[in-house]
Parts: sequence; C-alpha cells; structure tokens
Amino acid sequence: MTENPHDFESRRARGNERVLENAPLAIKRFFALDHDVYEDGVLPKKTKDLLGLTASTVLRCNDCIAHHLEEATASGATREEIAEALGIALLVGGSITIPYLRFAFEFLEELA
Amino acid sequence: MTENPHDFESRRARGNERVLENAPLAIKRFFALDHDVYEDGVLPKKTKDLLGLTASTVLRCNDCIAHHLEEATASGATREEIAEALGIALLVGGSITIPYLRFAFEFLEELA
Amino acid sequence: MTENPHDFESRRARGNERVLENAPLAIKRFFALDHDVYEDGVLPKKTKDLLGLTASTVLRCNDCIAHHLEEATASGATREEIAEALGIALLVGGSITIPYLRFAFEFLEELA
Amino acid sequence: MTENPHDFESRRARGNERVLENAPLAIKRFFALDHDVYEDGVLPKKTKDLLGLTASTVLRCNDCIAHHLEEATASGATREEIAEALGIALLVGGSITIPYLRFAFEFLEELA
Amino acid sequence: MTENPHDFESRRARGNERVLENAPLAIKRFFALDHDVYEDGVLPKKTKDLLGLTASTVLRCNDCIAHHLEEATASGATREEIAEALGIALLVGGSITIPYLRFAFEFLEELA
Amino acid sequence: MTENPHDFESRRARGNERVLENAPLAIKRFFALDHDVYEDGVLPKKTKDLLGLTASTVLRCNDCIAHHLEEATASGATREEIAEALGIALLVGGSITIPYLRFAFEFLEELA
Repeated sequence: MTENPHDFESRRARGNERVLENAPLAIKRFFALDHDVYEDGVLPKKTKDLLGLTASTVLRCNDCIAHHLEEATASGATREEIAEALGIALLVGGSITIPYLRFAFEFLEELA
Repeated sequence: MTENPHDFESRRARGNERVLENAPLAIKRFFALDHDVYEDGVLPKKTKDLLGLTASTVLRCNDCIAHHLEEATASGATREEIAEALGIALLVGGSITIPYLRFAFEFLEELA
Repeated sequence: MTENPHDFESRRARGNERVLENAPLAIKRFFALDHDVYEDGVLPKKTKDLLGLTASTVLRCNDCIAHHLEEATASGATREEIAEALGIALLVGGSITIPYLRFAFEFLEELA
Repeated sequence: MTENPHDFESRRARGNERVLENAPLAIKRFFALDHDVYEDGVLPKKTKDLLGLTASTVLRCNDCIAHHLEEATASGATREEIAEALGIALLVGGSITIPYLRFAFEFLEELA
Repeated sequence: MTENPHDFESRRARGNERVLENAPLAIKRFFALDHDVYEDGVLPKKTKDLLGLTASTVLRCNDCIAHHLEEATASGATREEIAEALGIALLVGGSITIPYLRFAFEFLEELA
Repeated sequence: MTENPHDFESRRARGNERVLENAPLAIKRFFALDHDVYEDGVLPKKTKDLLGLTASTVLRCNDCIAHHLEEATASGATREEIAEALGIALLVGGSITIPYLRFAFEFLEELA
C-alpha cells in the first residue's frame, strides 16, 4: 500500500531532523536554499512546484515526488495540471518512470 | 522478502489502471506504444524482452526488472540466458546494480 | 564556442530525418507523441516548455536544453523565468548540472 | 523503520549467495574485483570506503549506502568524517539525494 | 560532423592505452572482464552486442554506442535489428535519448 | 584532442561569469556553497577533492572531472592516488564510465 500523506510527512520530518542534528554547516545551508528556491518569484510557486515534481519524476525518487505533490496541491495545482506535468515527465524519462507514475497517481488519490 | 509474482502482477495492474483513469491522452498513447515495441519483429520477442531487462537493470528499477523477467520467461528465455543478460548489465552498470541483481535472481526463483 | 541556434537547428533537423528514414514504426510514433505532449492543454505551452527544460537540465543533455530553450523563448518565456527554472534544476540536480547551466546561459545569449 | 544493520547484513549475504549460485563466471569475477578494489593501497581503506559511500549516495542506492557505512565505520571513519563526505554528495548530487541522506543518518545511528 | 569509425577507433585505442599504462590492477582486470562478457555463451555474441548497445543508449554514452555499433555490425546484426534495439532504448529511456539516436543512426551510416 | 587545462580554465571561468550575471539569488548562493564544501574540515581538502572526482566520474561529467583533477592535483594528490580513486569509480559505475576514464587520464597528462 502507498504510505498515507500524514505518515509520509512525519517520517520525512523525523528524518530531516536527524540529518540536521548531525550535519555540517554545508548541509544546513543547502536545506535552507532548497526551501527558498520554490518561493514565489517571477514564476509563481505553483509552477515551481510542478517543475520540482517533473524533475523528481524523471530522476525517479518517490519521496521527492510525494513532497512535490503535497506542495503543488497546496499551491492550487489541479489533478489535471499535475497529470499533464507527469505526462511530460513520462515522455522525457521513458517507460522506466512508469512505476513512479503509478506511485504518483496513488499518492495523489490519498491526498484528495 | 521479495514480493511474489502474483502479488506483484496485481499491484502493477491496479497501479496502471489508476494511471490510465487519470491520464491525459499522451500517457495512454505512450502505454500502447510501450506494449507494441516488444512484439515480434525482425528481432524475436524473447530478444526484445532481454533488451528490456538489461535496460531496466542498468537504470536500476526493480518493478521494471520484475515485469521483464516475467515477459522473458514467458517468451522462453532460460535461466542461463537471463543470467548472461544480467551479467552484461552488471559490467555496463557497475556495482551499483548489485542490489538489483539480488532482486532479479530472487524474483526469478519465485517465478520458477 | 557554443553552436549558434541556426546551426543547431539544422543539425538537429538533419539528424531527426536520418532517424526517421531508418526507424521502425515505434520510433516514428514516439516522435509524434513527443511533439504533441508540449501543445497547449490545461497547462499553457510556455509552462510545458519550462518543464521540458528543467527535466533536460537535471538529466544533463545539452541538445535537449537547446531545443527547449528555443521552444520556451518562442512561447514567450522571459530570461528571468528561464533563469528561475534553471535555478530549480540546479537545486534538484546538484553541482553536476553546472556545466549544463553554463551551456544554457550561453545558448540563451545566442538566441537573443 | 530503517532496517537494522544485522538484518540488512543477513539479507545482503543471502541475496549475494543466490546471485553467485546462478551467476555466469563474469559475475563471479566482478564480485571478486569489487571486493579487492577497496583494500588498502596508496589510498587507505578508510578513504576508499568514503569514496564508495559518496559514489553510492550520488547514484542513490540505499543498500549500497548501508554497506559502505558499515565498511567506513569498521575502518575507523568518524561520524563527522562521514557527515562531511555526505555533504559533498549532497552538493554534487542535489536535493534528489536528500531522502538517501535521511536513510544514511538513520542507518548510522543504528550502527552506533 | 559525426567522427568516422576509423578515427573513432584510433582515438579509442589511444585512450585505452593511456588508461592501462597508468591504471592500478583493478582497472586492468575490469578491462579484461569487460572484453570477455560479450563472447559467445548461451546467448550468441550478436545478441550480447545488442544488449550492450541498448544499455549504452539508455545510459546515453555516444562513445559506448559507437563501440557497440561496430561490434554488433561485425557480429552480423542488420540495420533493421539495430533499429529495433534502438527503438526499445527510446521507449525505456525516453526523449532524452533522442540526441543519442541521432548519433547512432549517423554513425551506422558511416559504418556502412 | 583533449582541451588543455589553461583553455579549459578560461572557458569555465567565462561560462560561470555568464551564469552569475543572469542568475537569481538561489544560483549565486549555490555557487558559494559549492566552493565552501571542499575546504579543509575534519576531512582534508585533498580527500574532499578525490570525493568530488569520484562522484563526477560515476555521474559522467567531463568538465566536472577536469575541475576536480585540477583541484586534487593542487591539493597534492599523486597520480597513483587519483588512479585508485578512478578505479573505484569504474567499479561502482561500470564500463559506461570508461570514456570518462580515458578523458581523465588524458587531462591528467596535460596537467603534468
């Protein structure tokens, strides 16, 4: 079964805490930067979240996909917009991304 | 434990269904194409299934490996032929593929 | 020196012709699909071009970056929007993408 | 929950056994070579284990990370040295490696 | 222009020589193994060369593609068989492989 | 021919300048961080440069390899130490890294 978003979120938070407790300064600064880059700029946060989702799908990382689905949904991306972004990821990244698309659509359903 | 082939197959089918229910036309057309490309051509289906298996192993995707092992076995590929294809994947892809080889040989045993 | 956009475009067109002359049907169908997926949908073409650009940057393919920069520019993406999309690619994909960012900003200058 | 090191080690050993029982000679020779390359040379084993850990992190393979964490720890690498190596992996490989850093720091805690 | 096969072959030979002059034993043993794994086994050399070609295409390495095209052609693989193998690589690896397909079909023409 | 280190260095500097002229703040901060992470810490700079080199080789980026070879050499890494680090990269990353090893050993000769 796909992990539900609440469990994912608390597992992710606990893990990040452990990283940051043990991390040298470079890692802490990277985490801060990784937060800021998705903030509204000339591109709205919603578009940036879809960029993060597509990048995570072609690079095939389920935890990253889950996080960006949460963010994109919170920014107001619709299921249809998300599905189109995933369609581009599939074309760019090929059939090797299909298991990650299965995960994405299941997690999206859990989010709804 | 490695998931048994029956459970894998029904998880995979359910997931693909969910994708196709929500997918834009581009994704549906990709899925059709992804089925057709492995059909007999100037290369027999068995060879194509081994090509799909090797590609899945160097790209390191267990669900893709499981699917191509099922297809290759159904096309008549022997355990020895599959092991040679995985040997090439290991040489091309390096030690980072070893956990995927462990999975492949375990899933192959489940299939037998 | 970075290849100028006109030379890139004719090299790309010649190469694609050669592929399509020799390609089995599956490849031709893929090319058609790869064209259609970037058309206006619930997401505008400009956003889709930025998705293609970001995916190409994290996967580190200069020819793909050049193509999506041309498309994004033609769709009205500004230099600032493109730079933000590349910033997300850099954060997701890491310093290994930096040579591709150098290429992207040089090609963008040639396009202007 | 992160698998504990003892369970990981016995799962890994069982899997490798299964590979080697079924493997053609090329795979067996690769496994031998993959063992020898980390032995003391002009670089000490500890440095080589950190090289293996960093490579495994940028290529994003948890089982490989677990193995190299065990080896690096056994060779005397401290938590601070490991954290710096993971910091470099994060910078080179980008935010897509973050879930693997979470795994690494959790597994490291289990090892302690 | 695509490098002609003769120039590629001598550049490749010179480069390999330089590697082997400076290489520790592990690298030399890897090179020997990398030669042996493509020899006739339960799978014929031609099939193995197509496996190497497909793996090289999804991993996107032109020099590796050139080498496997030479080997596959020498083993008797026809242009149609090679094109089908590249079609599978395209489906598995996605549009990001297209520039590598352009290279492959151009190099194949040079080989003819 | 392999580009000589002087030409590489000025091409790299010009490219980075162009990126930084056009870059949003996130990219500038990433560049600063990417410089700092290789400074002496609990691991000496030389070890960090070898970590960067190995990561660049398994991720197959010649410009990144060239840069880390310059840094590692300046930090006092010997040819034998570099060759052992590249041997680990080859084992982890497989034969697909061989063209990058050819480049690395040629660039190293130019550096000498």
